[in-house]
Amino acid sequence: MANMELGILRRNIGEAIVKASDRLIAGELTDQFPTDMIQGGAGTSVNMNANEVIANAGLEYMGHPKGAYEYLHPNNHVNCSQSTNDTYPTALRIALYLKINELLLSLDHLQKSFGKKGKEFANVLKMGRTQLQDAVPMSLGAEFNAFATTLREDLQRLREIQALLTEVNIGATAIGTTINAPAGYPELVTQYLGEVTGLPIVLATDLVEATSDTGAFVLLSGMLKRTAVKVSKICNDLRLLSSGPRVGLNEINLPQLQPGSSIMPGKVNPVIPEVVNQTAYYVIGSDLTITMVAEAGQLQLNVMEPVIAFSLFNMITYLQQAFDTLRLKCVDGITANADVSKAMVMNSIGIVTALNPLLGYETCAAIAKEALKTGKTIHQIVVEEKGYITKEQWNDIYSFENMIHPHGIYT
Amino acid sequence: MANMELGILRRNIGEAIVKASDRLIAGELTDQFPTDMIQGGAGTSVNMNANEVIANAGLEYMGHPKGAYEYLHPNNHVNCSQSTNDTYPTALRIALYLKINELLLSLDHLQKSFGKKGKEFANVLKMGRTQLQDAVPMSLGAEFNAFATTLREDLQRLREIQALLTEVNIGATAIGTTINAPAGYPELVTQYLGEVTGLPIVLATDLVEATSDTGAFVLLSGMLKRTAVKVSKICNDLRLLSSGPRVGLNEINLPQLQPGSSIMPGKVNPVIPEVVNQTAYYVIGSDLTITMVAEAGQLQLNVMEPVIAFSLFNMITYLQQAFDTLRLKCVDGITANADVSKAMVMNSIGIVTALNPLLGYETCAAIAKEALKTGKTIHQIVVEEKGYITKEQWNDIYSFENMIHPHGIYT
Amino acid sequence: MANMELGILRRNIGEAIVKASDRLIAGELTDQFPTDMIQGGAGTSVNMNANEVIANAGLEYMGHPKGAYEYLHPNNHVNCSQSTNDTYPTALRIALYLKINELLLSLDHLQKSFGKKGKEFANVLKMGRTQLQDAVPMSLGAEFNAFATTLREDLQRLREIQALLTEVNIGATAIGTTINAPAGYPELVTQYLGEVTGLPIVLATDLVEATSDTGAFVLLSGMLKRTAVKVSKICNDLRLLSSGPRVGLNEINLPQLQPGSSIMPGKVNPVIPEVVNQTAYYVIGSDLTITMVAEAGQLQLNVMEPVIAFSLFNMITYLQQAFDTLRLKCVDGITANADVSKAMVMNSIGIVTALNPLLGYETCAAIAKEALKTGKTIHQIVVEEKGYITKEQWNDIYSFENMIHPHGIYT
Amino acid sequence: MANMELGILRRNIGEAIVKASDRLIAGELTDQFPTDMIQGGAGTSVNMNANEVIANAGLEYMGHPKGAYEYLHPNNHVNCSQSTNDTYPTALRIALYLKINELLLSLDHLQKSFGKKGKEFANVLKMGRTQLQDAVPMSLGAEFNAFATTLREDLQRLREIQALLTEVNIGATAIGTTINAPAGYPELVTQYLGEVTGLPIVLATDLVEATSDTGAFVLLSGMLKRTAVKVSKICNDLRLLSSGPRVGLNEINLPQLQPGSSIMPGKVNPVIPEVVNQTAYYVIGSDLTITMVAEAGQLQLNVMEPVIAFSLFNMITYLQQAFDTLRLKCVDGITANADVSKAMVMNSIGIVTALNPLLGYETCAAIAKEALKTGKTIHQIVVEEKGYITKEQWNDIYSFENMIHPHGIYT
Repeated sequence: MANMELGILRRNIGEAIVKASDRLIAGELTDQFPTDMIQGGAGTSVNMNANEVIANAGLEYMGHPKGAYEYLHPNNHVNCSQSTNDTYPTALRIALYLKINELLLSLDHLQKSFGKKGKEFANVLKMGRTQLQDAVPMSLGAEFNAFATTLREDLQRLREIQALLTEVNIGATAIGTTINAPAGYPELVTQYLGEVTGLPIVLATDLVEATSDTGAFVLLSGMLKRTAVKVSKICNDLRLLSSGPRVGLNEINLPQLQPGSSIMPGKVNPVIPEVVNQTAYYVIGSDLTITMVAEAGQLQLNVMEPVIAFSLFNMITYLQQAFDTLRLKCVDGITANADVSKAMVMNSIGIVTALNPLLGYETCAAIAKEALKTGKTIHQIVVEEKGYITKEQWNDIYSFENMIHPHGIYT
Repeated sequence: MANMELGILRRNIGEAIVKASDRLIAGELTDQFPTDMIQGGAGTSVNMNANEVIANAGLEYMGHPKGAYEYLHPNNHVNCSQSTNDTYPTALRIALYLKINELLLSLDHLQKSFGKKGKEFANVLKMGRTQLQDAVPMSLGAEFNAFATTLREDLQRLREIQALLTEVNIGATAIGTTINAPAGYPELVTQYLGEVTGLPIVLATDLVEATSDTGAFVLLSGMLKRTAVKVSKICNDLRLLSSGPRVGLNEINLPQLQPGSSIMPGKVNPVIPEVVNQTAYYVIGSDLTITMVAEAGQLQLNVMEPVIAFSLFNMITYLQQAFDTLRLKCVDGITANADVSKAMVMNSIGIVTALNPLLGYETCAAIAKEALKTGKTIHQIVVEEKGYITKEQWNDIYSFENMIHPHGIYT
Repeated sequence: MANMELGILRRNIGEAIVKASDRLIAGELTDQFPTDMIQGGAGTSVNMNANEVIANAGLEYMGHPKGAYEYLHPNNHVNCSQSTNDTYPTALRIALYLKINELLLSLDHLQKSFGKKGKEFANVLKMGRTQLQDAVPMSLGAEFNAFATTLREDLQRLREIQALLTEVNIGATAIGTTINAPAGYPELVTQYLGEVTGLPIVLATDLVEATSDTGAFVLLSGMLKRTAVKVSKICNDLRLLSSGPRVGLNEINLPQLQPGSSIMPGKVNPVIPEVVNQTAYYVIGSDLTITMVAEAGQLQLNVMEPVIAFSLFNMITYLQQAFDTLRLKCVDGITANADVSKAMVMNSIGIVTALNPLLGYETCAAIAKEALKTGKTIHQIVVEEKGYITKEQWNDIYSFENMIHPHGIYT
Repeated sequence: MANMELGILRRNIGEAIVKASDRLIAGELTDQFPTDMIQGGAGTSVNMNANEVIANAGLEYMGHPKGAYEYLHPNNHVNCSQSTNDTYPTALRIALYLKINELLLSLDHLQKSFGKKGKEFANVLKMGRTQLQDAVPMSLGAEFNAFATTLREDLQRLREIQALLTEVNIGATAIGTTINAPAGYPELVTQYLGEVTGLPIVLATDLVEATSDTGAFVLLSGMLKRTAVKVSKICNDLRLLSSGPRVGLNEINLPQLQPGSSIMPGKVNPVIPEVVNQTAYYVIGSDLTITMVAEAGQLQLNVMEPVIAFSLFNMITYLQQAFDTLRLKCVDGITANADVSKAMVMNSIGIVTALNPLLGYETCAAIAKEALKTGKTIHQIVVEEKGYITKEQWNDIYSFENMIHPHGIYT
């Protein structure tokens, strides 16, 4: 359309290309792309594949036989004012932008699922842990809310980085000097691209830089890695919290999906978190691939962009599947063992921390040591034996409400 | 100050702590921190180290001997309403924020240095290359401008990610429930922290999440990695462009710093780009360390934050040194071999691309093949022998101005 | 067979299992494995899949309908004396061993291809380069021989690490205590496994360790990474040496496979080395995935072995394809530009190094500087102008034979 | 010595160099090496530093003033028949070999410490776990023995890879053509090097390959990574097994080293395993640095070897410190909570697995489900209620001896 408007392509040729492109966008010609996703030549194969498919579909529209390139030529007409080095990265950016939209949707559903559990478990008391050691009490709801919060932050960060993809180099042609493109072409084709896609596409200000730069891909990959790291950490926690059933933490139950063992009857495994962990490690490994590729770019082009495309699409696709599976087959069905976890809190030593402001760190440390040595509970020592605090004080300090939302301190 | 205002710390104790902290900030007590940067316990050692140093300096101010903790106690008073799990990450974020300011300054100087060379080399014609193969002409200035542009983008991205560090969890205490902190403490201490540091510090909205979350560090590390990748790519290019002097590309000269060989007389090596490459690889490796640490966080705390601190400070420090060295000892002194590179352009085959719009892709491909086979120049073939274009057309198309800023196309 | 011999399985059941397994090995039942390669449960899904496929094929052999597990049960009979935790890693090791055999064959062909070029180019003089700077002369044959040598070393290392895969934990059952396996079973089944596969299978001495250990996979992955690094370095060199054709090193020509550009006529790209580079980066990224998985194993089992399997098979398959493609479509067809590279040698400054023993480092450095400054050749300065050496000495020192195999030094 | 024997260096000069080198080896001149470890120029700075230090110490021995290089020259005499490109990697290999000896010693001590605990805990019954879920019983001793076994295997692998370091390229000079070295020098200097170091040094057969090859460093780094992964997995397990004290697995106690919290009295953290984990992540990150450096080597030399040296020495040093700290401050002092862990086993559902051979997988699964649902023990169901087995059978099957070393099965 830009070439027609600028008088570079004759109307009948230009319109044939538009019609052919419409069919391509509609998915009618997808089976005519046999080229591997990982390829040498910085995407020349797939660009020429597209040019040829469009040329032949255009020829069909014009009433010419396939291959009659004297009427509509893949290079001279379809690729007119363009080159692989501007179309390939531009197409990649638009495709990634749209793909990320789907990922954001799945991530949003997942964080909401955690948030719902956060509300559901708001009144389940449990022991908080730091360094895998008993720390101080909290509600299970707060733990699941934190999972929701941390993923919600990634929604926001991903949107910011997604926006970086809208800067394109279309019309820069071979190396960013716009050689073979008519004056005004880059601006005009960018405007058309924005209209066709409905995205806020902008033209890069330094086209030479934009042609070789892979910075947006590296940052996107690093951000996907961050999300993978967070989801993996959450799955590690889910596996820990559901460990047992008898000789583990046993605070929550994951939905049972399949027999967990070919030999151990009744065993149930956290298979969904495990598969999400593995997905995360795949994503983290892929980030390294992209890092190395970005560093290997030389001079006016990064010739390895195809493996960036391959890696980013796999990362996004696998993450999205992992988010959906985790939500539907695991998080939505998690239940809490409220009685078990409450009993463990009251039997713990860590609850002595709440007495610090009243008794001081050193007295509390002595109480903790005695409890550990004798096996007694904190209640036994501070109320029943030593009388450090009254029963009323105990009940106030160790009320459910004060344990999960400490309402201040006592001096 | 917040504890005093909330009536939790008596004025005389609080003021002693303030005075002691002032001395610590002024650097007077730095030698009293023997703890290793990489430590277990999520930073408890360094937090207790600080608590004790402040307590004793406070005691000195109050006129008490060292260790007279009955008057000013490291845990009960200095650590009052706090815990390692909120002070350590809060301090780390502030320190990183300030350190990044220095990095940004060095990065800005570096991109300006490239920009200056971009102007200086604006009229140096050279061959652009894609896939290490001769592509089409460009100016050396455009190549250096692209280096400036790509680093300038990282300035902007780094600033955005730096801003994420201002969200802190101070007052969250052990696991984010604010246990042992008086009501209102987190908000008040955050306000004081903003005033003291002059930074736009804000309190995280989900303190449980904020206590275990390392997302900002992961993204910062990923961003530093991106900058390292870009600088490494630039150094790879500088080494390629200065290869030779006789059997290489030889387009630019790097400043000579030292004899390049113990055996080869007169050899000069690109030692500065080489050392910057190595720094970049160190940074990329460190990003992996941080990734693994972030993923290894369990439940309510990431206990490995000390190695995150160690890695991020090293990454920033080394990068900053690399930027300064690269600028001062290399980029500022780069000179161009304008005659050599112009002659190479005119002798190249790639310049035939400019004739595509006139002659079509297939005719141009035939010309290129003939040139490659016979060793002739494009001028010889298209003007002298075949007469495809006139001498005037040639002079217009292959004017310096049209080669580096193609002013449109000829049909 | 081991279960029958030990009297645990009745002959008619055991024989049905053997017959069914033979069909499985012959590939007849492969389409009955719908389980994804990446799965939770440490491979329980695929083990149970196999148990069920074998049970049903066995039932068919016995003349019973599918699912009549009272006659032949997937768990009680097929999985008898076994568990996922011993069969899955054992099967993985055997499959990897066999797969590596294919990789070694392709690697051997590739190194031989480089070796053949080494002989073919034995008399092609070229400039050796260190730090991309002209160093001293060598033969192109020596450069290609070095590619052969470095890959041949990897053949040897890979074979050593392949041998580590023959240690298995079959019969260890759930966690290595051999629970539910009859006495003598692990030893006997290992012996049968060796006979059936023809491989030197041995039983691990510490079955508890062997059940959770992924060390062999980590080392294998690290070794595949090393091979990927070497092949990537070689491809980087091939791309450098073939850069140009006019404004690059232009010492060798890679076979031309396809038009290299949609816009630049006559451009040819090193597409095969580029795709091999990308494969190498994929392999290096996968090594990171495996590293993280290995580290994430907890207690008596590494539950993430499926993604190790997925990654290792992909790494080996992709590397093998890369080796074959590189050999057949690139290395075998490489030609040398002998005249160009010889002329560049004689025009270089680096050849002054050979005069060190005669003239001393400092005199030679002065000669080099003069050549660089004036554009003169070394011959002009040392023979024609200064008379440092005679024409005869020059011809002896700078004979082809002495340049590529220096036969000693002159004092 | 080789240069003297070959008549290239006069005796008085050669002997001065030998005397000076002896002083250098004895550590007398170490303070004269101001060059940074990470440097450009592939080590030229440190090689020239050594050449100059040796020249001046030699001049002192000869009775000449410092800098009187006409008598003993850094390049012409000390560096005679050598170049940075052969001396630097040769020196690096020898230094690494010796450094690894120390690492092996520390690793051997550590595995022995685990082995001793393995014996000490041979009679401590505990629940084995797969996927963090209760599996089947085992002895704590077997768990610690497995730690010993897995590290002992790394001792063996490290020794094999250490041996690869003995292949050197000394005498290859600039790029492996032995330019400027007299005939026979590489072989002779290698022989002297073997005698002086007492190591089985051999000369590489392909000196051109050996000059640019970093394969041995990549494999060593990959192996150090494997050891780091293993030690990190062990530390993860130690932290899990010692989690609690009340709301965790609580099977073992790590020695208490320091108060674990500034706010939580009595809390003790697994600080040593935590610091070892962090060391492991540092090592894994460094392996990536080395991988990238190895891949970045171009043509006849890998110019980035200095950062390989920096990384490998840090990896080895940090690992060695980690091994020693882990052993002395943690493993040696670990104690078991035998009563707790035995009670947990008998209360578990996983012990039903031992009844598979008697009752079949499906009946056992039904028992397990009932236990999970009702909270009953397996004993209650199978002996007291259902009478599936007799009390005598129970006592035999669930004897300590049969649980940790199942002596066969019952059909």
